Amino acid sequence: MKKFTSVSDVKNLQEIIKKALQIKENPHSETEKGKGKTIGLVFLNSSLRTRLSSQIAAQNLGLNVLTLNAAQEAWNLEFADGAVMNGDTVEHIKDAIEVLNQYCDIIAVRCFAGMKSKEDDVNESILSQFEQHAKVPVVSLESATRHPLQSLADCITIIENWKKDHKPKVVLTWAPHIKPIAQAVGNSFAEWMQEMDVDFVIANPEGYDLDKSFTKDTKVIHNQDEALKDADFIYVKNWSSFDEYAAMPEVKENWMLTREKLENTNAAKVMHCLPVRRNVELSDEVMDGENSIIYQQAKNRIFSAQTVFSEILDEINSK
Amino acid sequence: MKKFTSVSDVKNLQEIIKKALQIKENPHSETEKGKGKTIGLVFLNSSLRTRLSSQIAAQNLGLNVLTLNAAQEAWNLEFADGAVMNGDTVEHIKDAIEVLNQYCDIIAVRCFAGMKSKEDDVNESILSQFEQHAKVPVVSLESATRHPLQSLADCITIIENWKKDHKPKVVLTWAPHIKPIAQAVGNSFAEWMQEMDVDFVIANPEGYDLDKSFTKDTKVIHNQDEALKDADFIYVKNWSSFDEYAAMPEVKENWMLTREKLENTNAAKVMHCLPVRRNVELSDEVMDGENSIIYQQAKNRIFSAQTVFSEILDEINSK
Amino acid sequence: MKKFTSVSDVKNLQEIIKKALQIKENPHSETEKGKGKTIGLVFLNSSLRTRLSSQIAAQNLGLNVLTLNAAQEAWNLEFADGAVMNGDTVEHIKDAIEVLNQYCDIIAVRCFAGMKSKEDDVNESILSQFEQHAKVPVVSLESATRHPLQSLADCITIIENWKKDHKPKVVLTWAPHIKPIAQAVGNSFAEWMQEMDVDFVIANPEGYDLDKSFTKDTKVIHNQDEALKDADFIYVKNWSSFDEYAAMPEVKENWMLTREKLENTNAAKVMHCLPVRRNVELSDEVMDGENSIIYQQAKNRIFSAQTVFSEILDEINSK
Repeated sequence: MKKFTSVSDVKNLQEIIKKALQIKENPHSETEKGKGKTIGLVFLNSSLRTRLSSQIAAQNLGLNVLTLNAAQEAWNLEFADGAVMNGDTVEHIKDAIEVLNQYCDIIAVRCFAGMKSKEDDVNESILSQFEQHAKVPVVSLESATRHPLQSLADCITIIENWKKDHKPKVVLTWAPHIKPIAQAVGNSFAEWMQEMDVDFVIANPEGYDLDKSFTKDTKVIHNQDEALKDADFIYVKNWSSFDEYAAMPEVKENWMLTREKLENTNAAKVMHCLPVRRNVELSDEVMDGENSIIYQQAKNRIFSAQTVFSEILDEINSK
Repeated sequence: MKKFTSVSDVKNLQEIIKKALQIKENPHSETEKGKGKTIGLVFLNSSLRTRLSSQIAAQNLGLNVLTLNAAQEAWNLEFADGAVMNGDTVEHIKDAIEVLNQYCDIIAVRCFAGMKSKEDDVNESILSQFEQHAKVPVVSLESATRHPLQSLADCITIIENWKKDHKPKVVLTWAPHIKPIAQAVGNSFAEWMQEMDVDFVIANPEGYDLDKSFTKDTKVIHNQDEALKDADFIYVKNWSSFDEYAAMPEVKENWMLTREKLENTNAAKVMHCLPVRRNVELSDEVMDGENSIIYQQAKNRIFSAQTVFSEILDEINSK
Repeated sequence: MKKFTSVSDVKNLQEIIKKALQIKENPHSETEKGKGKTIGLVFLNSSLRTRLSSQIAAQNLGLNVLTLNAAQEAWNLEFADGAVMNGDTVEHIKDAIEVLNQYCDIIAVRCFAGMKSKEDDVNESILSQFEQHAKVPVVSLESATRHPLQSLADCITIIENWKKDHKPKVVLTWAPHIKPIAQAVGNSFAEWMQEMDVDFVIANPEGYDLDKSFTKDTKVIHNQDEALKDADFIYVKNWSSFDEYAAMPEVKENWMLTREKLENTNAAKVMHCLPVRRNVELSDEVMDGENSIIYQQAKNRIFSAQTVFSEILDEINSK
């Protein structure tokens, strides 16, 4: 694997999931693979699971880990090409990346959507600079439009929880929130589900359709009850409007996932990428109930990251 | 040892101190014990000694260390059960803990008293959530009412500095400060001294008596001169009022420990957990004088932590 | 090497550069040298290259690394001797250092000029406390008046890029900036160049002469064109006025380094310590052009630090 910023970097998803499950069985089987090599984890945004799971994954592979909280530990970065840097920004992102090229064998970066300019976010104004200037493999720890390490963990979790011989019905359902949230997790989950052998539908209120370039021909239903019917997996996630970018059009129905809503499903397993707003996105009952596989999903973040780092190290070591 | 949040988690204090002194002699004698295991150090508050000594202790045992500055690197946590999370908090503490369960073999947490609600602090509103939800051993790096790793280091330091054959007189004396400080270090020191073979008294101004559930039948003296007489060890520490919670009732006498006050003692050794407000809590002369064993005490934080982590690893490895 | 805070700590500069180049050839040749030892990296200021390169250097030597962002992770430190600490400061720097003495085998510290009191900065009010109170070797990660790890990396980079048999002409040229910047990099580069076998001149506008105690008898030219003529290396760096301390006297000419200005040189290699304000200090064309050896210089920060840590470990291990 040469880099990892979307599902298109994965040649064979079934193989990757299989490898991740093997790593989960024996996470310390490759402790020499990363020896003498360094991964830089660059955080332009907050992180808990991604931060910790990436570190564990890297340590399990024997990698040296450099963590940089860019804004707090370094300084404000400039992102505009050709900028006359006579303002608040202290270093251009491309210079920071060129320095990371000198210091790291893998660069992993977390760079959320700014939620101000649709164009900037759609064009991945930050991640694209890493893709352009990095001379070592780049791993996305969530970018403006995608969260692929999360999506791979989601796939692993679905496979682990599905032993029946028919295709599971997987529903990605929008959930309420109190502020505008990026579409990255939703977009990404849609892309990955399209590569999985599942029946996938998306449920969201009108005005909240995700970017068509991610959802493609996935069925989008504007009625949550209808969408959840007979679901085997329900993925709960908020996102703000894509069309009216970053807006939060009024939603009259209550889309919070409750235990009552699970009754109409096929004893659906409930997923969420965390952090979750309890009793806003889903109820305590669902979060703490037996249908939730949310913590298992969080654990699989380790094996998602470790598999990706391991594949990338294979590529590096083969040179 | 199954967890470490107070002296009651220690079966045999003399044995633990003996082990700590052995570890101090040879800190690199157990570098394989923690191999392949991960300790999460979660800081909800600032830290210097605890942060560094815990990392050294963990590294000495071969543990992987994950450090999380929760507020800065992740986000605001919700602590109220059943909360409708439509405000500033982004993730519920119990979800964060459940995720730490997936990632760590030991969870260590620093969570100061909030100093606003006596009930919350007395009930250890944060630590209790860790004790309730953690499925791996929990270590307190200081909580609302106790600082047990400090107290164990204090015991080690007293034993190291006492070669005579009679019981030493140990005085915990209140000291001035400029803002309301928690009672945790004082409470905890009282609890541990009650388990030690020492004559222990507490000196504090009226209005500053510590919680009786910690001091029990320890003699509390409201006159510093009287208390310090013939002292072998003096532990200097400020705390705010427990009765009138977090208040700072006026104190007319000057309780700052000075060299003059040492004259009446048995050449007492002076202790403080640090950080110390020089020339407020104690004078430069005392801090920098030959009676001070304060830096030795700081050093013993390593061996206190290493002993506890080692004992907990024994328990984990025995399963 | 007993400590490393200026060029005067280096006995034989040619030998040190030679060693650094050997380490660059084989950075993993001494992975056991630091085993069981701990380096504390204390940041009182922001850092990107220094932070990352120091960590890599330490890891390459097998050292345990403790990183402390003092203000964010610990608290405000008091620097005044004899202070009555009844204000904002929580711990005296000398107590913090004494604790670091207990925890670390090497203490490395970054402490910028405060840019308020010329006297404090000239006297290295912070670093001097480390030099006074540290009982283990101290390494400067940049102080008020010097940046010696940068300067050593600069020397390595010049040697790597000079194969001709005559002395190269090295020009340190002032560059514009938007706010007052310390003189540390300029001072330090001057000191080190005086020890190198080069023709060294400094170019800066009137009012911006560096402290004579650093520049000594180095030729200072107030006309940039004249200074750059036939240059083999150009080091671009801003600094504020030393005479009128931290002021920014008006400069009428444009001192930004542009491609046009390179025409008059001997195809000069361009250097900068980074971070750089693009199109303020130098133009995009120069930064991204073939004359720039700036990223190579950044890479050499690893080997500069590793050489120094290695030399200090030799001293420690010889005891």
